[in-house]
Amino acid sequence: MNCLFCKIISGEIPSKKVFENDMVYAFRDIEPQAPEHVVIVPKAHIPSANDINEENIAYVSAVWAAIPEIAKSLGIDQKGYRVVNNCGEDGGQTVGHLHFHLMGGRSFGWPAG
Amino acid sequence: MNCLFCKIISGEIPSKKVFENDMVYAFRDIEPQAPEHVVIVPKAHIPSANDINEENIAYVSAVWAAIPEIAKSLGIDQKGYRVVNNCGEDGGQTVGHLHFHLMGGRSFGWPAG
Repeated sequence: MNCLFCKIISGEIPSKKVFENDMVYAFRDIEPQAPEHVVIVPKAHIPSANDINEENIAYVSAVWAAIPEIAKSLGIDQKGYRVVNNCGEDGGQTVGHLHFHLMGGRSFGWPAG
Repeated sequence: MNCLFCKIISGEIPSKKVFENDMVYAFRDIEPQAPEHVVIVPKAHIPSANDINEENIAYVSAVWAAIPEIAKSLGIDQKGYRVVNNCGEDGGQTVGHLHFHLMGGRSFGWPAG
């Protein structure tokens, strides 16, 4: 499968890993938009939020279970952070593998883009 | 419990409901930042993403299982959308009950705030 994030998960393409378990992989965004900016992906190839279903929801659940732990490891849990999922063209999704941006280390304005 | 979103879930404070099941409630944001802007909340009082744990993760999972359905019902699934969780002060969290902003009907810039 010619998916950038699947290749990052497998190690075929290098990344700066910050967290991994059996269902989740997280790595530093190569174009960070905040002092701490991590991309969190399910290890299953789910194209977008539109494709979340009963069969793969456990992977999404695993991502959200990992978020407090990752935020703590980055030292941003107390001051706070923003988590963003972009779906499709309007959302600004640039890679067709469901992913969540965890960003912290600065304050974020509203609206979110 | 003196929580705005708990009162919205219970109906004590009125809201424009767009979705509800046994674990999730979704309603229109009173200060919309996009043509479609819905706030999705777990029916359990989880203060923030920092407080997601093994006992309440099923509620977060239920939110994400509902997102494709809600997006479809709003007619934004094909063009796309953005989902945002704000945690703490840096994130811009204004209500201490975990919630997710589902926004669509326009394109969103980057970074997300």
